Amino acid sequence: MITLNVELDERSYPIFIGQNLFGDKSLIAPYVSGKQVVIVTNETIAPLYLDAVKKLFSDYQCETVILPDGEVYKTYDGILPIIDCLMENKFDRRVTLIALGGGVIGDMTGYAAAIYRRGVNFIQVPTTLLAQVDSSVGGKTGVNHPLGKNMIGAFHQPQCVLADTNTLDTLDDRQLSAGVAEVIKYALINSSQFYQWLSDNMSALINRESDALAYAIEFSCQDKANVVAADEREEGQRALLNLGHTFGHAIETGLGYGNCLHGEAVAIGMAMAADLSVRHGWIDSTVQQQIVSLITQANLPTQIPVVQGVRLSVQMLLELMAGDKKVLDGQLHLVLIDALGSSLITSDFNIEKLTETLQAFATE
Amino acid sequence: MITLNVELDERSYPIFIGQNLFGDKSLIAPYVSGKQVVIVTNETIAPLYLDAVKKLFSDYQCETVILPDGEVYKTYDGILPIIDCLMENKFDRRVTLIALGGGVIGDMTGYAAAIYRRGVNFIQVPTTLLAQVDSSVGGKTGVNHPLGKNMIGAFHQPQCVLADTNTLDTLDDRQLSAGVAEVIKYALINSSQFYQWLSDNMSALINRESDALAYAIEFSCQDKANVVAADEREEGQRALLNLGHTFGHAIETGLGYGNCLHGEAVAIGMAMAADLSVRHGWIDSTVQQQIVSLITQANLPTQIPVVQGVRLSVQMLLELMAGDKKVLDGQLHLVLIDALGSSLITSDFNIEKLTETLQAFATE
Repeated sequence: MITLNVELDERSYPIFIGQNLFGDKSLIAPYVSGKQVVIVTNETIAPLYLDAVKKLFSDYQCETVILPDGEVYKTYDGILPIIDCLMENKFDRRVTLIALGGGVIGDMTGYAAAIYRRGVNFIQVPTTLLAQVDSSVGGKTGVNHPLGKNMIGAFHQPQCVLADTNTLDTLDDRQLSAGVAEVIKYALINSSQFYQWLSDNMSALINRESDALAYAIEFSCQDKANVVAADEREEGQRALLNLGHTFGHAIETGLGYGNCLHGEAVAIGMAMAADLSVRHGWIDSTVQQQIVSLITQANLPTQIPVVQGVRLSVQMLLELMAGDKKVLDGQLHLVLIDALGSSLITSDFNIEKLTETLQAFATE
Repeated sequence: MITLNVELDERSYPIFIGQNLFGDKSLIAPYVSGKQVVIVTNETIAPLYLDAVKKLFSDYQCETVILPDGEVYKTYDGILPIIDCLMENKFDRRVTLIALGGGVIGDMTGYAAAIYRRGVNFIQVPTTLLAQVDSSVGGKTGVNHPLGKNMIGAFHQPQCVLADTNTLDTLDDRQLSAGVAEVIKYALINSSQFYQWLSDNMSALINRESDALAYAIEFSCQDKANVVAADEREEGQRALLNLGHTFGHAIETGLGYGNCLHGEAVAIGMAMAADLSVRHGWIDSTVQQQIVSLITQANLPTQIPVVQGVRLSVQMLLELMAGDKKVLDGQLHLVLIDALGSSLITSDFNIEKLTETLQAFATE
């Protein structure tokens, strides 16, 4: 087992990464302060891991909330079953919520923990690659609004993160690839070395070789932990982690939540960021091809799909992007690429070139 | 104008108390960082003060949300009109929300500011005595759950508080008295001197004499600022501010939100705290009579009313109290009185004596 620490003063916490972590009560016990626990999971994960995780809490009053599975349920009212369970059991401020599932469960459970009695503890137990490398670390919690993704939420750090790599065995191929999209993101943001490692080991990752998975998770978590420690509330460089996300959120929202996986949308978004970076002459087309090729090796899309007949025009994409969080006083900030393994946050891009990129990717 | 400061490191902020504060753009301008503002108010306050407050923001893009008036609307879904307005206008993280109204508007607006894009700025402009002396200071924001008051929320400090005492001219007598309940609370918590001042000046307060009001507001805000600065997240002594509130919340929830004003419920709750304190021998009945007499002078109730035929039994009150925030691992903490002008937080009370107090106040 590997232990990484996210250094945030009194909000610091460890990330445990390894196999068979659900077998050891003593690992998690120091991070549960009260005697009351609520495990929040979904219909897909419950039959697989709920019993094992419940056993970790056999010494506690332990309740369970099982939500429907999917991004489409990550809504404002979607967290009410968690709040209702807490209220009906009269759970006090010392309750700990356990988020057992992927990014959606982590975001919703963390948000419920942030607002119940003005904030109670929670623990992330991510069961998807995407959640293990990204969404379970960093304290961003929240739900979607019909007009934009993650627009309602809170910064609320977990007590610890328990990433059991065994849970990836039951992940379907499409979900695994979606997680690899966020792994690629870390390479593109700040490590040409990790890019090279990914190029050499992509088939091992996709074939779930445990050493390759463990290294990819460790590198990604360590990278994210460093970025978050330096800028917890995204007032500066943390925004680098949004590479591919401004385009990606527009695609996800435009196609309807759940019609395109978050990781898939981020993959397309990274391809769009590469395209726009080439148009500015910041990278040459060879680098773009390398990026697109790596994304493709991961069985991820690099073009916006047409789902259930929904086509996205330039105008729709622009409007959805302007509704994105990366807008400050009407000025759009984008994360773009200036070398293989190096990205930057900038508002200094040409709007006509942005339109050209959108034209190249729009499906209508 | 008086300026008090709430000292909370980088979250410190001033409280401005005085007359005609809405006439001076320069007072509030330093506390608005972006160019976008949303004023949130209600149907009662809008015709009275919205135009004046809008003029303060004539240099900004200024939108308005007018909510229905009353505690019954302080619900989870009740804040959605604020969020929808923010989303429809694509307001970014630098937007400032302005809470123009009483405690309900302040709590709802502050909560919306806490969760929109994981937190944006807000300013409190309280227009009731209760909000000026209590709810607008201290950063507690939130909404009610059907099973308990303020159970969903966040700690989120305002950028500043603008308490214009002129707004009290339009407050009805019942609302004014409800505000005086929280003023009395500060005397009972930690100042026999202020208790004496209130005894001598209660009729001046009730008759809205401006000097008396200004002093009561200043004393209360200064007292609250000190308590909050020492214990922002209520991990210790801040709970003293809950004197009368554990009983009071049970009464409010039991009678149905809006059927008993918050301040009225707190007044009854303080009378119950005095009763229970006498039963423990911590104060004698003379002190209890002094407290009850001061509450009565303020035209406030000291007995639980029967509203629309709803009667509260001992069992109902106990259950509603056990659902209150002051429960830690199943143990009820109460704020009780140990001298005139002195209170304490304790779980060391006799449950039979508590039952006797509830029997004395129950209406069924």
